[in-house]
Formats: sequence, C-alpha cells, structure tokens
Amino acid sequence: MLFTIDRSQQKPVQNQLREQIIAALMKGQLVAGEKMPSSRKLAKDLKISRTTVMIVYDKLVEGNFLVAAPRSGYRVSDIAAKTDKPPPMNPGAEMPNTVKWEKWFDSRLGAQRNIVKPLNWQDYPYPFVYGQPDASLFPLPAWRECSRQAMSRLAMRDWANDAVMADDPELVTEIRSKLLPKRGIYADRSEILITLGAQNALYLIAAVLMREGMTVGIEDPGYPDARNIFDRRGAFLIPLGVDEDGVVIDENVARSEILYVTPSHQYPTTVTLSPERRKALLTSVAENNALLIEDDFESDTNYRGDAVPALKSEDRDGRVIYVGSLSKSMFPGLRLGFIVAPERLIKELRTLRRLMLRHAPSNNQRTTALFIAQGYHLSYIHKLHQAYGERWHRMAAALNTHLPGMTTAPRFGGTSFWIKGPGGLDSEALAARALDQGVVLEPGAVHFMEPAEGARYFRLGFSSIALDRIEEGIKRLAALL
Amino acid sequence: MLFTIDRSQQKPVQNQLREQIIAALMKGQLVAGEKMPSSRKLAKDLKISRTTVMIVYDKLVEGNFLVAAPRSGYRVSDIAAKTDKPPPMNPGAEMPNTVKWEKWFDSRLGAQRNIVKPLNWQDYPYPFVYGQPDASLFPLPAWRECSRQAMSRLAMRDWANDAVMADDPELVTEIRSKLLPKRGIYADRSEILITLGAQNALYLIAAVLMREGMTVGIEDPGYPDARNIFDRRGAFLIPLGVDEDGVVIDENVARSEILYVTPSHQYPTTVTLSPERRKALLTSVAENNALLIEDDFESDTNYRGDAVPALKSEDRDGRVIYVGSLSKSMFPGLRLGFIVAPERLIKELRTLRRLMLRHAPSNNQRTTALFIAQGYHLSYIHKLHQAYGERWHRMAAALNTHLPGMTTAPRFGGTSFWIKGPGGLDSEALAARALDQGVVLEPGAVHFMEPAEGARYFRLGFSSIALDRIEEGIKRLAALL
Repeated sequence: MLFTIDRSQQKPVQNQLREQIIAALMKGQLVAGEKMPSSRKLAKDLKISRTTVMIVYDKLVEGNFLVAAPRSGYRVSDIAAKTDKPPPMNPGAEMPNTVKWEKWFDSRLGAQRNIVKPLNWQDYPYPFVYGQPDASLFPLPAWRECSRQAMSRLAMRDWANDAVMADDPELVTEIRSKLLPKRGIYADRSEILITLGAQNALYLIAAVLMREGMTVGIEDPGYPDARNIFDRRGAFLIPLGVDEDGVVIDENVARSEILYVTPSHQYPTTVTLSPERRKALLTSVAENNALLIEDDFESDTNYRGDAVPALKSEDRDGRVIYVGSLSKSMFPGLRLGFIVAPERLIKELRTLRRLMLRHAPSNNQRTTALFIAQGYHLSYIHKLHQAYGERWHRMAAALNTHLPGMTTAPRFGGTSFWIKGPGGLDSEALAARALDQGVVLEPGAVHFMEPAEGARYFRLGFSSIALDRIEEGIKRLAALL
Repeated sequence: MLFTIDRSQQKPVQNQLREQIIAALMKGQLVAGEKMPSSRKLAKDLKISRTTVMIVYDKLVEGNFLVAAPRSGYRVSDIAAKTDKPPPMNPGAEMPNTVKWEKWFDSRLGAQRNIVKPLNWQDYPYPFVYGQPDASLFPLPAWRECSRQAMSRLAMRDWANDAVMADDPELVTEIRSKLLPKRGIYADRSEILITLGAQNALYLIAAVLMREGMTVGIEDPGYPDARNIFDRRGAFLIPLGVDEDGVVIDENVARSEILYVTPSHQYPTTVTLSPERRKALLTSVAENNALLIEDDFESDTNYRGDAVPALKSEDRDGRVIYVGSLSKSMFPGLRLGFIVAPERLIKELRTLRRLMLRHAPSNNQRTTALFIAQGYHLSYIHKLHQAYGERWHRMAAALNTHLPGMTTAPRFGGTSFWIKGPGGLDSEALAARALDQGVVLEPGAVHFMEPAEGARYFRLGFSSIALDRIEEGIKRLAALL
C-alpha cells in the first residue's frame, strides 16, 4: 500500500494523492508501464470518493505521468523510465563535522540581540505582538487576479528573463506616481531602487556607505535590526536620545557621519518628529556634510488625518536616503521595499544589489505593480485604516483606564503602543508572567543599546489582536503590574 | 478628456481604462460624488466597446471606487475624499547633488568586470546568448495552478507572516526528497538554506567565510559573478587552471583556504571533472583543512544519460558547501536557490540572511514547492531536455561542420558551447562584427582573471535560439572567422 490519506492535514485530499503518486514515480516505486490500481479499488482502500481518484488520474494523464488505456485502466507512462534514478546514498556521507567552524566565523554576528516572539503566539488569546498583520484583512481574490494577469504569456516575456540590474518598470512607475507623492516625494526613475524589503534596503545602504570605525548615529531606543546591520559593518554606533518630540538634536547628531532615523513614526516609541526638530536635523546634517537615512516604515498607517510628509520632501541637498516598505502594507512574506536617493548613489547600490541577489523576484514585482495600479492597494489601505484605527482607539481607551500615564498615544498612527512601566519593572519577567495569563507582549530591552536602560519599557502591538480582546488583555496586564 | 487608450500597448484595454480611472482618483482629478461619463459616451470617445466600459465600471463598483446610482449612472465614491492628497512638490527639492559621492564609495565595486549582453538581443535572428531560457517552453498554466493553490486562505496563513529566519518547510521537503537525491545528496532539514538564487548563496557564503587577504582559489576561466563577489570581500584570488578533465589539481589548489568549483559542468568551458580529479580534489581539501564551494548550476540539463553525482555526495568531512539553483530550471526571474552544508554553517548563514533580507518571498517558495510536489517540475525538465537536447545535437553537428576542432562537446549537457578561436582572434571585435550579421555571441575575456588570455575564446549559448536557426547562425560565424 503505497498511498495514505491523512485527513488531519490542511492539504486537500486530491493534492495528497497526486503528490504521493509523483513521489513514488520519482523514487522508482512505480515503474514505466506498471498498472495503477483501479479507481474503484484505490477509492475503497483510501476511503475517499471514486471521483477524487478519477480526477487525479485524469490530471496525471494530462501531465503525461499516466497513460489511459481503453478497458485496461491506467498505466505509468514512460516518463518514469526517463527519470534519473537517485544514486544510492554514499556510505559515510552523512555530513560528519571535522571542521572547526567557530574559527571561520566572525563572533560579532552570533552575539547580536534580536526581537524574539513566542513562535506559537497565535495560540494565545491576547497576542499584542508587533509587525504581524491581520491576514484575514488581505484581499486575496484581488491579489490572485493580479497574479493571474502578471502570469499571462505576454506579461511573462517581461519578467521571465533574468533582469540582472533592472527593476520592473511598471512597479517603479507605481511607486513614483502613487506612493511617493503621498509622502511629498517627487523622484525620477533613476532615483529609485527596488529591494528585498526595507531591511534589505538598510543592508545595501550600510554595505555601500559604512566602513569600520565610521560614526553612525542611531536612535536609542531604536530598531534592533538596523543596529545589528550597522554593527556588522564595524560602524561605531552613537546613541541619539529620543523624547516626546522625536530624536534629540545635540552634539551626538553633529558627531555622526551617517544618521539613521524614523521621523514620521519613531521606532519603537511611535512619536513623530516635531517641525522644529525636522528643520534642526536637516540643518545639522548639511552643516556637518553628513548623510541621513530616513526609514519611513508604516507610512501608510495614519488614522488621524494629519500625515506629516517625509523628511525627504524637504531635502535640498540630496543628503536624505529614503527607505520605504511595501511588505508592511501588503504582506511581510512578500519582501518588497525601495530606496529613493540621488542617482549616483542609486547606481552604486544597484551595482551591489546585482552582486548580492540581482533583483527582487520579477513575478512579485509585476503582481504588486498591478495591485497598486488597479486600486487594490488603495482600498486595502482604507480597510486596514478602518480596522487598525478602531483597534487603536480601543487600545488608547483601555490603556487610559487601566494603565494611566504610562504611554503617549502615537501621533501618526502605526500599529503599536510603547509603554513606560513603573521604575524597577523587569519587562522580561513581566512578559513571562503575562504569557501564563494568555497575554503576549514585547519587552523593551532589545531596542536599547544598553539593555538595562530598557528594562522598564515594553511594546504592545495591535495588528494581530481582535478588537474585542483588547480591553481584557490590557486589564490582565494591569493586574500583573 | 482624462483618459486615453493606446492600442499599441501590450496592456489589455480594460486594464488601461481601470488604471487611468484609479490614477485620476488618487491625483484628485476625480473627486467624491463626481459623475462619471456614461458608458455610451466614454465608449464612443475612446473608440472602445461599451461592454468594456461597463465591465470596468462594474468592477470599480465592486471595489468601492464607484457607486452605481439607479437611472443616474456612476459616481465617484467617497474613497476619493478619504484618500490623502499628495502635498505639493517642495520647491527646490528636485534632488540636487551637493554630496561628493565618490569619496563615500569603495572603488573596487565600480571596477568589476561583468558579462554584458546587447539589451535588445531578442531582436537579432541568431541569438547565441547564454542563461536566458526559452520562455515559450515554461508551463504557465501549471505555474498558475500552483500559484492559485499557494494563495488559498488556508495556505496563506503559513506564508503571509514574516517568517524572519525560517524557510517554507514544504519547499525544504521537496528539495530534500526530490531534487537532492538525484544528485546523490541526502541531507537533513537543518542542513538546507533557501537563498535568493544561487548568486545570493555565493554572496552569503563569502560574507560569512571570507576575509581580507584570505586565499581563495577560483577556476580560470570561471564565473565572473563569483570572482566579483569574492573580490568584494577582499579575498586574494588564486587562479586554478582548467583543462579537458576539469580543474587542474596543483599547488594552487593546495594553497587555497577556500575553493570555488563547478565540477559537474565547468563554467564556462562545460567540461566535467574526471573521477581521478574528483578524488584528488577532495583529498587535497581535506589535507589542507580547506573548504570547497560546489556550484552545481544547470544540474538538471543532462542529455546524455551519464549524470555525474554531485561532489557533495562524496564529501566525508563536511567540507563541501553545495550551491543549487531553482531559477535555472524554473525561470531566472524567480530568484530561488539553496545551500546544502553542515548544520553549524547553515545556522551562521541563516543568521546573516536574516540580517540581509530575512528570507526569500514566501509565496514564491510555496508555489515552487507545489510545482515540484505535483510533478510539474519533473515534466518541465523532460520538456526542456528534449528541446535543449535537440538544439545541443544540432549545435554539435554545425560546429563540427563549420568550425571543426574549435570546441569540446560538453559531457554533461548544459546550454552552451565554449569555443577556442584561432590564435590572435579578438572575440570582442568578432562579437561586434557578428552583430552586423544578426549573430549574438559572448566574448570570453570577462571569464578570465587576465582578460587578454581570454581574447581568443567565446561562448555560444543555445537556450534562446530556435532549432532551425542554429546552422545558419554558425555558418555566418564561420564565414567571419
């Protein structure tokens, strides 16, 4: 009995059967000319409908894996004979480890601190995790429709080939004409580069611009992945303080050769850089002949109607390198982001990207371009705004009631609240105790250059928690505090 | 007149109209409540069918962009009012360039030599280009079907979230159970990492293992992208000679701390490493406590039934780092590859990949897994074999007739022939003259560490040239020589 059906699997029964027949054929368990069990018998043995078996058999005939012979049923086609049989496993080749790997590695990489979420956070009733969108809101039928269009024989001519250096011109057009203007940015095609998500954008920028010992200012608290990426380049990291008006403009800003900031919506505190600070920051950068990386993540989450244009829109020296994300407003697994910067820098980044990965997958670039061009992105953003806006208000109210004074509501929207717990709080310990109550939260220490400074802080994301669970979750948390 | 239809565009008329309405809405050219032209009038003005206009209008109603009012036609919905209007362009913000960019850059990156193809190679009748598959052979309906399955609401739960470190378990299963055994490799899940194509695999390996001044042996001639990637790490590159038995085992092999080789099918000469050399190479690597990177590109192109297992299958010390490509056997724009190596190294590579780009796009990983599991990959490979095999025989015959003695037919298949022209030939000049005759070929110099050594060589790819064009193309080339 070669085949088994497991009804507890998510995979449809048809797929299970088809995949097992293909696997048997490739392993040589089914050979060319061999007679397949009759649909009646197989259906009975596997306790599935005969129609299912017949559909699978017919599809396999269509794919030339089986041959249907009149009155004698189905036989394995000669594709089985033409398929390379795996050579036997080489004795002793189970990958022993005689290599002392540690001596080959750079110890810096392994020592980096990262955000860690419980892998099974979806199993908890109050998951205040950050950065995981509510997949049920995503318009799958629209994405499927765009994907189908991107996979037409005609469109495929554009993207099947290795584009080497180039990005999908249609995606560049959409970013340029629809996404950037909303942020006050008007860029030429040659000033835009598509990346494998915003994080890949930061990696490319760091690899091109940062060198051992260069002074790089980063917000503290700030985005741990950016810190880790810059650290990997051997940069000397300078902490830039953050208060309720955003990053503090002081001598640390002046000392930085490159600055990394999240002005519209500081990560992780959610504060928006004040107009005065914006001016002061750009002035300081110009006076010190420095460069500024603006990470405009979550630029599409603004529930209060007072969106602040990107800092890049006020850049009069070409010193601002703008990083945008498409994953945040589509789905993170898509891994698409982009950089807007002066043409000469984009050219250098493109040369490095060619070396690193050539380009983002062409089919996803085209599908995303269609998704934006046909308005699906716009209506998805509206849907997200509504859903996240409601949760945002519910969060603000619950926090105000149960944890008064511990947070500043984000001015620009976003998908989280940053909480300053009471002095002496150990948010790591709190997170562990909260899990017992079904509440998932993110301790703050990982966002700080000095972990001890962040012990009293934590973050509550609300993109993955149901509206009606918010109040109870906050209440349980308050009880623990 | 806001809208225009351009019939010379590939884009379907429906899409053109829909996209222009969305664009007008986002730019504020259409405002909430505004009456749309009647389908009759718009159809007349644009010279398109009224049905087309009605379908577009109905779809826009479905997407809440338009509202259909009984007897009064279609109006713009209030989504237009809720959409952020772009702030005006900031005067003086057209990205001037006051930054002296060159001083920020590493001059090494800009100086690298790359393969350059005429961008419009598809316009020439005899395109002997390399590495561009024949898109007409790709089973688009099967890919669409898998893509549709990967985009089910249920499956999306698996891949919509940011997987951070993880790869799609189903793709790992397929690589492990169907692709690797054919190469004689039996690996554990923890020994496999998915990358953004084989080139990204090399970049990751170099970034983890290579340091300034480390001695790295590369085949000469060899793969220019690998040479460039290792050069970017500051490695000291040692040329390894190549003859008709593959890479020559000499003191340069012994001196290399890391070796990069393409044993099954040497790039670009197409020769297969002989059994004696295979043994000698592995022995030398073990004796010198070195590491070996095996690039098994085009492992699925073997028209002669004598596939050689991967070197990795004989690795008894865990010193072979295997790099495989899925782009070659699917479509290059997909950008999927993988690494097989000891678990400890994979762990380190995964940590770096997390920093660089997190992971390959999840939807493509899942679609590819289904494409392999359901046998479509297998039958596509068969189809490719047949088509490329025919072209391979035609090429071999034509070269034998018109350019006798100038090439060794590849033992392992592949998609190109490597030609040693007469002494004193300048293949760059030949390529330029051949273009005038409609023939595209690739000069050999870029594959050599010393470009002058490669002047007499060139490469003829046959994956993109029609079978019946081969002989005439070679004939024209012979006439030029």
